[in-house]
Amino acid sequence: MKNVHIISVWVENKAGVLSKVSGLFASRGYNILSLSVGETEDPEVSRMTIVVEGDDKIIEQVKKQLNKLIDTIKVIDFTKKSCINKELCYVKLNMKTKEKSDIIMTSQIFGAKIVDIGKKTITIEIVDTDKRVNEFLKLVSDFGIIEIARSGIVAIAEDEK
Amino acid sequence: MKNVHIISVWVENKAGVLSKVSGLFASRGYNILSLSVGETEDPEVSRMTIVVEGDDKIIEQVKKQLNKLIDTIKVIDFTKKSCINKELCYVKLNMKTKEKSDIIMTSQIFGAKIVDIGKKTITIEIVDTDKRVNEFLKLVSDFGIIEIARSGIVAIAEDEK
Repeated sequence: MKNVHIISVWVENKAGVLSKVSGLFASRGYNILSLSVGETEDPEVSRMTIVVEGDDKIIEQVKKQLNKLIDTIKVIDFTKKSCINKELCYVKLNMKTKEKSDIIMTSQIFGAKIVDIGKKTITIEIVDTDKRVNEFLKLVSDFGIIEIARSGIVAIAEDEK
Repeated sequence: MKNVHIISVWVENKAGVLSKVSGLFASRGYNILSLSVGETEDPEVSRMTIVVEGDDKIIEQVKKQLNKLIDTIKVIDFTKKSCINKELCYVKLNMKTKEKSDIIMTSQIFGAKIVDIGKKTITIEIVDTDKRVNEFLKLVSDFGIIEIARSGIVAIAEDEK
């Protein structure tokens, strides 16, 4: 069965590691749907969140390979665990004066924020799940999307209750 | 002079491209400080935001190399342009009952959001510039950071006024 897997990988923060990790997916023909890499509490460690679609069995193999990389510190697969997973998205839209209030209203309904406004364009920031971001983008696409910048998903385990 | 460069790269959304791009930086010994890859308005195109530190001259070379990759569609260097650049960060903290209101207050001051709470931990979401996120993390580190997940910077040009 093809599933979407969210995997967090802690790696040594040094040149070449990202290339090794992404090469590992590429060599198996797996396209990474989204990827984000950021610093952690330890300046020598980076954390990647990788979203990849694939057969359960093969993803297991990829995880094993990841664990074998000398620069890998830890691998967590969030697929069967409760986690918060959202992404940051900026979207720049065409804005005709008469549509301005409509754009602002739609943004408010989605908890999105107007972060910039120009003569003919408006830029909106939204932080939500992949699904909700896609819904929002579909709605505002009627106004004319000029540009989108998405962070890719960031995931963290839910707190133990 | 060593500078931090924010570069947006639009690439073909297919297996192996990320590996090629990150390999390009790795082969020059440049460590990518942060990287995010997300979908765009075109399902066949991904957009990367790469933050890299380096000598201006060498970064120019890297940009030229990026432009030469067959899968590269467009490269924009935001270094000398006005742009919005923020990141999404989740931080999980230890939480003692008596510290709860202190954590919530600090979060409110930074415009950060409590997104989950457990028996002994609390998870906070913050969307801000790299500098502000670092300031926030420094402040809350006194409570005891268990885990951090950062998206890496996402950048979009400011609207023309």
